[in-house]
Parts: sequence; C-alpha cells; structure tokens
Amino acid sequence: MELDIGNALSEVASPGVSEETLERLDDRVATAHERISAGKADEEFGYTSLNLPSSTDATAIQEAVSGFEDPAAILTVGIGGSALGAATISQALGSNGIPLHVLDNVDPEHIRDTLDDLPLDETVVNVVSRSGTTAETLANFLVVRDAMEEAGVDWTERTIMTTGDSGPLHSLAMEHDLPKLPVPEGVPGRFSALSPVGLVAPAIQGHDIEAVLAGAQAQEETLSGSLHDCPGYAYGAVAYALDQRGASINAMMPYAEGLEFFSEWFAQLWAESLGKDGLGQTPARALGATDQHSQLQLYRAGPPDKMVTLVRAKSRSDLTIPDTDIEDLAYLGGSGLGELLDAEFEATEASLAEVGQPNVRIELDELDEEGIGELLFAMEAACIVAGELYGIETFIQPAVEWGKKAARGLLGGGEFEEARAVESKERLIID
Amino acid sequence: MELDIGNALSEVASPGVSEETLERLDDRVATAHERISAGKADEEFGYTSLNLPSSTDATAIQEAVSGFEDPAAILTVGIGGSALGAATISQALGSNGIPLHVLDNVDPEHIRDTLDDLPLDETVVNVVSRSGTTAETLANFLVVRDAMEEAGVDWTERTIMTTGDSGPLHSLAMEHDLPKLPVPEGVPGRFSALSPVGLVAPAIQGHDIEAVLAGAQAQEETLSGSLHDCPGYAYGAVAYALDQRGASINAMMPYAEGLEFFSEWFAQLWAESLGKDGLGQTPARALGATDQHSQLQLYRAGPPDKMVTLVRAKSRSDLTIPDTDIEDLAYLGGSGLGELLDAEFEATEASLAEVGQPNVRIELDELDEEGIGELLFAMEAACIVAGELYGIETFIQPAVEWGKKAARGLLGGGEFEEARAVESKERLIID
Repeated sequence: MELDIGNALSEVASPGVSEETLERLDDRVATAHERISAGKADEEFGYTSLNLPSSTDATAIQEAVSGFEDPAAILTVGIGGSALGAATISQALGSNGIPLHVLDNVDPEHIRDTLDDLPLDETVVNVVSRSGTTAETLANFLVVRDAMEEAGVDWTERTIMTTGDSGPLHSLAMEHDLPKLPVPEGVPGRFSALSPVGLVAPAIQGHDIEAVLAGAQAQEETLSGSLHDCPGYAYGAVAYALDQRGASINAMMPYAEGLEFFSEWFAQLWAESLGKDGLGQTPARALGATDQHSQLQLYRAGPPDKMVTLVRAKSRSDLTIPDTDIEDLAYLGGSGLGELLDAEFEATEASLAEVGQPNVRIELDELDEEGIGELLFAMEAACIVAGELYGIETFIQPAVEWGKKAARGLLGGGEFEEARAVESKERLIID
Repeated sequence: MELDIGNALSEVASPGVSEETLERLDDRVATAHERISAGKADEEFGYTSLNLPSSTDATAIQEAVSGFEDPAAILTVGIGGSALGAATISQALGSNGIPLHVLDNVDPEHIRDTLDDLPLDETVVNVVSRSGTTAETLANFLVVRDAMEEAGVDWTERTIMTTGDSGPLHSLAMEHDLPKLPVPEGVPGRFSALSPVGLVAPAIQGHDIEAVLAGAQAQEETLSGSLHDCPGYAYGAVAYALDQRGASINAMMPYAEGLEFFSEWFAQLWAESLGKDGLGQTPARALGATDQHSQLQLYRAGPPDKMVTLVRAKSRSDLTIPDTDIEDLAYLGGSGLGELLDAEFEATEASLAEVGQPNVRIELDELDEEGIGELLFAMEAACIVAGELYGIETFIQPAVEWGKKAARGLLGGGEFEEARAVESKERLIID
C-alpha cells in the first residue's frame, strides 16, 4: 500500500500542509506513537485493536465455519461495527457465489423481502453482538429464527454466533451447542473488522482470511515514531492537520465498486471515533467515477472545507471496450474500461489540485486479501493517531446513549426521562 | 407530504432560524417564486424541470416499454442523473420481481460480474444519455452490446434508448427501429427523474407511473409566494438559512431501506446544483436506524456544522417481533419492527434537538407512487429556491469539464492541456 500526500502540501493546496507543519506533525506523531505502543503492549481498551493481526485465531474461525458446507447464502445479523467489517471485506473480495446479505436495520419491509428471497434451508445465519442485547440485532434475530422455524428449518443447525463471553447469545450458543466465536475483548465494534466479527463471512465464502491478516500485519509493522515511515499514521496526521486548517469534511472516494462498503466502514470509524467534544472531521461517502457526475462540482467549486481521499488498486483484470464507428467515441475503442477508470481517477485528482483542493491518494497493489487487510489496518492506525492528535477519547461513543434510552422508554422498556423529552417536541408543520 | 421545521427554530437549535429570519426568508421566497414562476411559464432552461409532472407523457412511456413482456431484469446504462432517478424510484417502490441493475461506473470487474449474472436474453437494456456521447455510458453500452451478441442475443430486440433528438444513440435507435424516449429539453440530468429518464424502469416493473406524476403534481400545486404554504420552498429556505448560519453539511437520513438511493439522488441534486462560487451545503448520505450506530455520535457531539434531515413514511406494513424469554429484551416482544424503527426515529430526532443540533422532519403518508413523486418534486423545488437565495446558477455544472478534458486527453481522444497537468503531479509517497 502506498500513500501519496503530494496534493495535500501547501505548494499545491489551500488548505494545505507546509513542510514546517509536517515536521511539527512528525514530532507529535512520535509522541502519539509512544502512547499507542504502550496501549498496544498493555492490551489497553481500544489500543489493543492494533494487535488483531496477530491475536485473531484464523484457524478457530475456519473450524467454526467448517460445518456449513457449500451454503447458498450468508445472512449476517448485526448493526454498525458488527456488520460493516464483514460487508466491507466480503464486497472487496467478491461473493464467490455465496452472497452475503446483511440485516443491519429494522425496516420491516426490507426484512420481509430479504427473508422471502433467501433459501433459508441453505443459508448460514451469523448473529453478531458483543453484549447479545443490541435491540435491533436481537429483534431481527428473533424474526429470522421465527421465519426459519416456519420454513421447517432447524435454526440451531444453521446459526453461528459471534458474541462475548456472556449474555443471551452466548447462553443460546451454549444451550444449543452452536458454533461460537468471540468478539475480542477491548476492541470497539468499529475496530473489529480484523477479528471473527469481520472474518466469518469471508471465511465461509472461501477467502483466505490468513492473507487478510497478513496484509494487516504488514501495515502493523510500519507503525513507528515517524509519519514518513507509516502510511496509516501519515494519513491520520495529514487529515487532522487539514481539518485544523478548515477541511472539516473528508470525502472518501474509492475508484472501485468493491470498495463501496469500505467508504461506509471508514465513515463509521472516523465519525464515531473522532466526532466528540465539538471536534471531528465529517466523512462523506463518494464513489469514483460515478460521483464525478454528482459530487465533483461541489468538491471543486464549493467551499474550501474538504479534503478528498482517492483510493484505487494499481492492477486489476480489465475488460476491453469494443471498437466503434461512432466518430466522437472512436478514441475509446480498444482501451480497457479499467484504463478509462484510471484516466478518470488521475484527471479528477489533477482537477482538484488545479483549484487547490487538497487530496490524497491511496493505492493498493491489488484489491485482494492482502490489499484489503492493509487498507483496513492502515485506516484504523490513522484514526487512532488522529484521536491522539485531537486529544479526544477515540474508543468511546457516549453521545448515542441518550437516544437508546429514549427509544427504549418509548417502547415500554422502562422509565426514562429521555422518552418524555421526545413527546414535548417543538412543531412547525408545513404541508 | 408534511415538513416539520420545529427543530430548526432558534428556540431549539443553534444554529437555528428565528421568527424574524423566517419572516425575512418568506419575503425572499416570494421574490424567488416570481422568478421561478416566470422561468417555469417560459419553459426556461432548468426552471422547466418543474413542469415535468404535467409535461411528461406517461402513455408514451407505457407504449415504449410494452414490447418487453415479463423480463427477468432491467439493466440501465447511464451515469449521474441518467441513473439515479430510475434507481431511486425503483428502489422506493420495489422490484416486483424484475430487479433493476444499474451500470453507472466503469469498473471492469463489477461490469463483468453483472453481465455474468444476468440472463441477457430476458433482460431489457435501457441506455440513457442525452447527448449520446457520455464516455462512461457509451463505453459500457458497447461492452453490453458485445456481451449480448456473444450470448447470441439480438440486442436490437432488447434495447430501449432514452436520449435527445440527435447524437449516436438517437441514430442507432433510428437505424434499428428501437423504442426511443426523449430526454426532455431544458431539464438537467439531476432534475430529470420525473421524465422518461427516471420512469422507464419503474414502468417496466409495473408501477403506476401516472401516480408518481400525480404525487409530483400535488407538490407542484403548493408552489406559491410563501414558504408557509409550500414544503419544498420551506425546506430549501431553511436549509439555506441554516447553511448561512454555519450548518455547512446536510445529513440526509431516511428511515427506510427503500430510500437509500433517494439519499444519493438528493446528494447529486444538492451538490451539483448548489456547489459553486465557493458556496453550497455538502450533502452527507445516512440511513436510519443503521447510522445511529455510525454517524450519530458525530452528529450529536461533533462540530455544530450540520443539519440533519429525517425522512420516514407514516404508515407501512409491519412485522411483529416474536415474544422472547430473554429478560433484557422482553419489552420488544409483540412490538413491530416498524414500531422499533419509529421509536428510534423519534428518539434520534429528540436526541439531536436536546443538544441544539438543528434537524427537520419530512413525512410521507406512505412510501408508494404518490409519496415518492411528492418527495422528489418537493426536493427539486427546494433546490431551485435555494439556488435563488444563494444567487447562483443552479442548473449548470461547469467545474466538471476540466477533468473530462483531462481524461479524454489521457486516453488519446485529442490534445488537451489539462492532460499535461496530470503528468506533472506533485508527489510525496509514504509506503
């Protein structure tokens, strides 16, 4: 994996990072790295996420899924970090004929459609919740279990639990002798992609999850006291510095359909980790080349409050555009679609630089197991170093608790003053 | 459709809109409405988009698609506004067993997978490009046509063109006597959802496209000189006023899986129309309840630079959560998943208001034909009135031309100085 911050430098961009700023950042990264290394060595909450490349037991995952031979589909029931890691890795690597469906919402119509379409007797259900009490996940699990029973499918034969060492899902797994994998201790959901949380689905699809971990490990080995040696730290430090200088939005724009979920995964990582104390860069999800016809006008000509992160794989299998006698398009004939995509990538990058819009380029050798492992680990390291630079508590998400209590109160799950606040909403209705 | 701006008022939110601001906005909306009405009456470029509810010929669309009986799938080949309208309406209304696939990117691996999975002899291909020369769309069309020929499928029997009155696609349609529908004159792509551009796919899926237009027309009838009578204008005026007061990000957060594409459609509408002259609010795409576990921490505790737009349908068919003896979750048993979703909607809205984060609520009666027609039209009116308030040229997108030329130059499609700029990129590589 290669990071190119040339277009984020103040020679090119405004806001931009000057040479002096880079030097100062490098010193601060050295200090942050000491803190991170200590946290990592002591397996401290959050920091220990960076140990997953070596602590995750790939063999245990392979064994746990080995009972499900050649399923028609996978249904992951989880939400937030319990869903996005698996969706990201699986999409990046392809389904291998075993599509992954994710129930990460409680929209009844969508869930009904999903369950109607799935061959439940050939589907593996992976329920993912550390506590085993996440309301949306457990509600969905109860609905899925019911649908399986109605379809005459023994749910205990087709379910694998990824959960903590206690709680309702753990108990169910014990009671019915289900395959069960751990949600690693000390790892917040959004940092858990490189654990069973993110790897069960790819393992069932036959991907080489050891290679995913090896890719991550290669990035783990770059962690060091200088941003010049570590793409992850460099990305985090530059994003932080650009945010401090006005780039309050980070548009994540991979040029690969297989990285659409990666943008969502990144958006959670960045928003939930860094969005606190009035600080935090807002992630925007984009996709190249598609969003050149949607967001690029704004990125190039709107307020100078953004950085754009462009991601691509350096090599891929291409598809040749047939020759054509359409005059205006003859130049495309014989080129690959991938060449067109690459030209658009470079053209967009240059078009942003031309107006001083800061952007950075991330390139993977290939979008394969190693590549996605590298990318996910590097972004996690980026996020953690950015958290140190902001001086915030990266690994918690206290602002979501208020709403959880309010919802629970509204549904009769107890007395919560938050629920009463809902009922006194100010209204000004226009219809 | 109902808009509630109560949580955007300065009594609740900061930034917020005071009563005096609302009065001043109302005066400015009156002036803007005069301009918009004149443009609409004179069928001026862009403004005439608001005439589509009555000018779109639903019967012609029905006739053009009537030759395709009971297809297995639809493949729309288009990009940006040529794809998002159809994807949005189709997703909102459901596939009716005829899934819509969209080729709106030039990722070779994704296109190969899509073509491998589709039964090409039972697929309707809808190629959409006003000029008939959009590079990505034409390249994809050439690849699709080749694949059909290789599969022994007569592409002329299975293709419908949506294009202007001249250009390569028009010529091909004439030559092979293909069904052809117009891209309406004077309507930028991002405003064309309520024309054949957005309605061909839903028509093939058997949806009542006249009802979609009727919903839009109901909103058209609200256009008036006061924001208090027009949800579209009110939304645009409030978003503009909040942006002026620091809410530079607009997080569009529907609570319905069927509105995921709507958020993308809105993001294009908003970004490409308003992102110019250093102005424009940045759209962020979110999805409730899922993003409560991802973006909500940032929205509630990050910088006060956002407004959140919450969208839902008031009624839907629900799915009951089975009773459970899991103690901590017993309160969920017997409720509907939709009730859980609604409680989370209201809890999130209140949790944002509680910290003074401005938000607005949009409610449809149902997510049906009328509902999606209303929603799309109201957002277009919102965007146009906001453009008037910003004082920008809403209907053009000049900033994307630089990159188009650069890409064309890189691919040998002519001499462009932009292409040379690409090659002199500043680099600072970390690996």
